Amino acid sequence: MRDFSTGHEWLSINTATVRKSAGADLPLTQIIEACVARGIRAISPWRDQVQAAGLANVARLVRAHGLQLSGYCRGGMFPAADAAGLRAARDDNRRAVDEALELGAPCLVLVVGGLPGALQGCAAHKDIAGARNQVRDGIAELLDYAKPAGMPLAIEPLHPMYAADRACVNTMEQALDLCEALDRGTRSPRAALGVAVDVYHVWWDPKLQAQIARAGQRRLLAFHVCDWLTPTADLLNDRGMMGDGVIDIPRIRGWVEAQGYAGFSEVEIFSTGNWWQRDAGEVLDACIARHRTAV
Amino acid sequence: MRDFSTGHEWLSINTATVRKSAGADLPLTQIIEACVARGIRAISPWRDQVQAAGLANVARLVRAHGLQLSGYCRGGMFPAADAAGLRAARDDNRRAVDEALELGAPCLVLVVGGLPGALQGCAAHKDIAGARNQVRDGIAELLDYAKPAGMPLAIEPLHPMYAADRACVNTMEQALDLCEALDRGTRSPRAALGVAVDVYHVWWDPKLQAQIARAGQRRLLAFHVCDWLTPTADLLNDRGMMGDGVIDIPRIRGWVEAQGYAGFSEVEIFSTGNWWQRDAGEVLDACIARHRTAV
Repeated sequence: MRDFSTGHEWLSINTATVRKSAGADLPLTQIIEACVARGIRAISPWRDQVQAAGLANVARLVRAHGLQLSGYCRGGMFPAADAAGLRAARDDNRRAVDEALELGAPCLVLVVGGLPGALQGCAAHKDIAGARNQVRDGIAELLDYAKPAGMPLAIEPLHPMYAADRACVNTMEQALDLCEALDRGTRSPRAALGVAVDVYHVWWDPKLQAQIARAGQRRLLAFHVCDWLTPTADLLNDRGMMGDGVIDIPRIRGWVEAQGYAGFSEVEIFSTGNWWQRDAGEVLDACIARHRTAV
Repeated sequence: MRDFSTGHEWLSINTATVRKSAGADLPLTQIIEACVARGIRAISPWRDQVQAAGLANVARLVRAHGLQLSGYCRGGMFPAADAAGLRAARDDNRRAVDEALELGAPCLVLVVGGLPGALQGCAAHKDIAGARNQVRDGIAELLDYAKPAGMPLAIEPLHPMYAADRACVNTMEQALDLCEALDRGTRSPRAALGVAVDVYHVWWDPKLQAQIARAGQRRLLAFHVCDWLTPTADLLNDRGMMGDGVIDIPRIRGWVEAQGYAGFSEVEIFSTGNWWQRDAGEVLDACIARHRTAV
């Protein structure tokens, strides 16, 4: 297991973590400058932030600074209530692949979606098995587009509390079942379809260690960190800084690295009440410090 | 599958559902009277409510009204930071078994506990595997007490969002692994160690149907209903009335009854912002109506 205590060479910042600085929106260009100024070598940007800053502009900035990406957030949201919705999701996901390629991302992270309409508070139906079938078909179709283009897809199993509205793939086991069903038999060192392991979503899973081993180096495409707070005040936007919660992050990182994972440790914190209220520079400094002591 | 549309013969009220009436505490004696007045045949009382009303008094009331229990809430909370804590949990759980026997409950529901101290906001450690070992040992020890006394223990897998502070048994599969490890080989029609299936906790699980089948009639000791709201405003106290959320409750009840489950459907709703603000009579009437239409 790599020693993170003396530097932050393997720290990546998911740009949602500093989406807001002192409560106000922070443009991606400024996020990039703030990261570069601190010797942070990698980021994982969100599509809405990229769009606001301009894709070509962001791609140029990333190259100019020699920044790496640890992923691109995010494709997915496959289920829909009708055929038009399914087509719209397909087209949007292809655009996400194109953008990920232009930005030089190592993978496109997939938050697969839940029951259509649930995120807007009005689910079109209650058939989660049906939604899961749409996810399977959507990933299969996107893989036909992404694989020849050389863009790996990373299914991110989301915590079961998001099953209704954000992602109906909720365990590593379920994600890997999909990977093995849709992306068989290749021997490339990096799979075309793999997983993004976010400790916040999977730390509770009694089968986590076994499923990380099952994934193996080929399918472990990304590793995300933050912490689970007790109490947690909000289902979405009360994630903790590493070390402030109950997740044994080094233990999980050890399992991932035992499989040969040697990539970035990406900090992804949504925090309306705490970190988004602070100055982004302070947040990035905290990420660097905690990357050394708590990851 | 039984037809619930014409009556509420199989409705049970978990007394937490009307713990408060119009925002004020409602004593268990009054809850019982309100249920009896509506022809509700069963309740599942909480220990704190029983204690406040007096165990002997509640037992007498239950018998006088010919009420049945669908369970007794709750034992568990096994993990502790030291030997004294483990002993205290053991002793308290034995008292819970005694109380369940006096009340004539068909099972003692176990909410097994999480990381010691986490519920108070200060976890003693981050070793969830260690907590799970303490849970296993605690259930084994309690089973030695409860089985000869004839009180079945029902492990309630709690939603993974409670893994840190309330229960580190979070899936049916995990609960049934425990059942099979600790309570082997008997052929009694009702297992000494089984599960309480609460749709709120398990609806998201892609392996739910298979695990319900694995449990079989012997280990299906209780069936709890409410609904998952989108959005959910609070991790603990924002459960929905059946029909107001996204859970396909009849489908899950069908799976449970396909195994031969023929007991009560127990309504357990914690709802600070909505149902606990309403008059208890209105809440019970809603439970009766939704039991017919949405369960």
